[in-house]
Amino acid sequence: MTVPGERSNTESMQYLGARVKAASAVLANITTAEKDEALKIGADCLVAATSEILEANCADIERAQIAGTPDTVIDRLRLDTSRVDAMGEGLRQLVALTDPIGKIVEQWTRPNGLEIQKVRVPLGVVAIIYENRPNVTSDAFGLCLKSGNAAFLRGSSAAIDSNIAIARALREGITKAGLPEDALMLVTDTSYEAAIEFMQLRDHIDCLIPRGGPSLINSILDNAKVPYVIDGDGNCHVYVDEAADLDLATNVIVNAKMQRPSVCNAAESLVVHSQIAPNFLPRITNALEGVELVGDERSRDLVPSIQPATEEDWSTEYLDLKMSVRIVDNIDEAITHINKHSTGHSEAIISSNQTATKEFARRVDAAAVLVNTSTRFVDGEEFGFGAEIGISTQKLHARGPMGLEQLTTTKYIVNGQGQTRG
Amino acid sequence: MTVPGERSNTESMQYLGARVKAASAVLANITTAEKDEALKIGADCLVAATSEILEANCADIERAQIAGTPDTVIDRLRLDTSRVDAMGEGLRQLVALTDPIGKIVEQWTRPNGLEIQKVRVPLGVVAIIYENRPNVTSDAFGLCLKSGNAAFLRGSSAAIDSNIAIARALREGITKAGLPEDALMLVTDTSYEAAIEFMQLRDHIDCLIPRGGPSLINSILDNAKVPYVIDGDGNCHVYVDEAADLDLATNVIVNAKMQRPSVCNAAESLVVHSQIAPNFLPRITNALEGVELVGDERSRDLVPSIQPATEEDWSTEYLDLKMSVRIVDNIDEAITHINKHSTGHSEAIISSNQTATKEFARRVDAAAVLVNTSTRFVDGEEFGFGAEIGISTQKLHARGPMGLEQLTTTKYIVNGQGQTRG
Repeated sequence: MTVPGERSNTESMQYLGARVKAASAVLANITTAEKDEALKIGADCLVAATSEILEANCADIERAQIAGTPDTVIDRLRLDTSRVDAMGEGLRQLVALTDPIGKIVEQWTRPNGLEIQKVRVPLGVVAIIYENRPNVTSDAFGLCLKSGNAAFLRGSSAAIDSNIAIARALREGITKAGLPEDALMLVTDTSYEAAIEFMQLRDHIDCLIPRGGPSLINSILDNAKVPYVIDGDGNCHVYVDEAADLDLATNVIVNAKMQRPSVCNAAESLVVHSQIAPNFLPRITNALEGVELVGDERSRDLVPSIQPATEEDWSTEYLDLKMSVRIVDNIDEAITHINKHSTGHSEAIISSNQTATKEFARRVDAAAVLVNTSTRFVDGEEFGFGAEIGISTQKLHARGPMGLEQLTTTKYIVNGQGQTRG
Repeated sequence: MTVPGERSNTESMQYLGARVKAASAVLANITTAEKDEALKIGADCLVAATSEILEANCADIERAQIAGTPDTVIDRLRLDTSRVDAMGEGLRQLVALTDPIGKIVEQWTRPNGLEIQKVRVPLGVVAIIYENRPNVTSDAFGLCLKSGNAAFLRGSSAAIDSNIAIARALREGITKAGLPEDALMLVTDTSYEAAIEFMQLRDHIDCLIPRGGPSLINSILDNAKVPYVIDGDGNCHVYVDEAADLDLATNVIVNAKMQRPSVCNAAESLVVHSQIAPNFLPRITNALEGVELVGDERSRDLVPSIQPATEEDWSTEYLDLKMSVRIVDNIDEAITHINKHSTGHSEAIISSNQTATKEFARRVDAAAVLVNTSTRFVDGEEFGFGAEIGISTQKLHARGPMGLEQLTTTKYIVNGQGQTRG
């Protein structure tokens, strides 16, 4: 068995691209049963290869330790038996999800008798550039396969041994299921140059989804020549209106900030109506015990333990137990502040006043607006999509959590009886 | 009244972008009636300014003539009273179209009681880079306005006087209608540097749609840092299957090739099953009188007047009375050939065999597949969209004719009663 996607000096990234593109043409025309069978066999092969995968993972961990990589990063890299089992389980869970391919999204007949159908079809080749987590290799492959796409994957050099072992096991499964093994193509050249080449393979990549931090995103913006969907930062706000139920507000904010502070849908900024601030701010400060608060002057007059916020704080996604606080005099000021600093991810309002919640929902420009609930719910699983490949913070193609449907496009099929245009 | 979008030496493209972005926030929250009123007043102001517009157009034409511009290009540039009237009529026709904004695309309730709505909202700022036709200034503005978007327009230097006059009239109309005049922002700096700056305004442009030839498209691919939708070439094929009705095939091919050869949905290549080629090829050659045919050896054996095709011909969009011809032995060969050379626009099959037409529709990778009808029908008007901003040949966001709906995105609104994530 060859190393997944290996290329010799005489082979080019173009060649890998052509191979995965060829595989995508096969995947676009198989049945749901064939995809599901490949997912199950892939899961079995993955779990059966646990010892090889963990051995490869040890090599990655060892390199990282020698390089002095921080423990939090090493933790993201580390696999164990239960993590490999979870990857297999993730593939098996996709079997239960509805196959989006072939669905007639719309159909109508024109006055001249032409029958037009808009049908859901795969994108073709979905490329993912990702950072240290090796489970993305398996998760991304599964979502691509179920949606009829070939997966063209480029992980980080830190996880390369793990990724190769995982991809090898999955490619074995794909082959056993009678599908082309290039349905999962892993780029093993993890150089910067290869990454740039990868994101410019316009003939072979239909959609690129980067999963990583700001430097990866910026590299995509600077260099990509293929269509992409950005899964960006979440500088999420919770606005507490003057008509808020303060118990509810407290529960929701504690959840949004503290339940898992390191993720993109965690809240980063608290915006409070001046009318209720004297009552609410001391209370929420107590409830957010352990969270470092920085705020504007008015908030600090009310709660002296709040440290001064700099201008930069309003635009910062802390991903940590830290939160900015700002007092506003009305909902208009809240919306203006949020739209100025939002990254377009998820924004919440706490209010019992329907006029206020409707205005907020209408005017706030974000993928998701939450009314009286936590920003943490903006997630493919929580939305009921079953799984997600990321959360889009752009407006084109997909906005918000991306499930199987967001990995598809449509095709028009026009049935005629010899009509010509006059 | 100021010149639309004029900037002084101390003002930047960023400043123009910030202005149009601010206008977009207003447009996102107005009623259908307000948009329709602005379209009608805009149309009136445009027609009222006919003499100023034609005077400006004369200046453009004169410059073009001095520069030795070809007549066909000058024709695209030229306006007259009836063309200005048609622009006004185009705006008025948008009034009758359904406003896509505010539509609830989907809604569901989660087991925890969260009510999720997916609502259609404007993109925000839609940017268009276009070539010589000055009517795009008015057409693009109208489609953007009706879909709640601000229009950020950058036409060519050749049409700059006409574009300024048109934009000035429309901005007067917008102001009269009580909307921000920056809802139409025309970039009057037509330098190459300004175009590059324009396509990199990531903070201010939500979607860029280039309307022009390959050099513009390549410039977008090389330089753009904003999300874009490519309206690309149409190397459209018609495949005549062995089970084709040859009368129907002849009519459709003549229509697809000859009715308007200069447009992207005209057919450029004829693919014929070898079984019917001896009968059909002489016949279609006669019917395509005036069309220069180039073909493979087998086609030339059957019809000696067909000239030899080079490898390049298979990938060429002639946009002229010229067509390539190829003989294939079965539908699989036809599909493989088409998928290899297609630009993903529109591909047709002529066949009475439903197994063949279904296989073709499933396997051909294009925005539109036509069965027993002309490729010329792939068009926003012909699809019933009322108007179109272009035809997308990419798979992300929009594929095929782009009407009002393709100028929108969605937003999730999640209504809760205090739910928190466990």
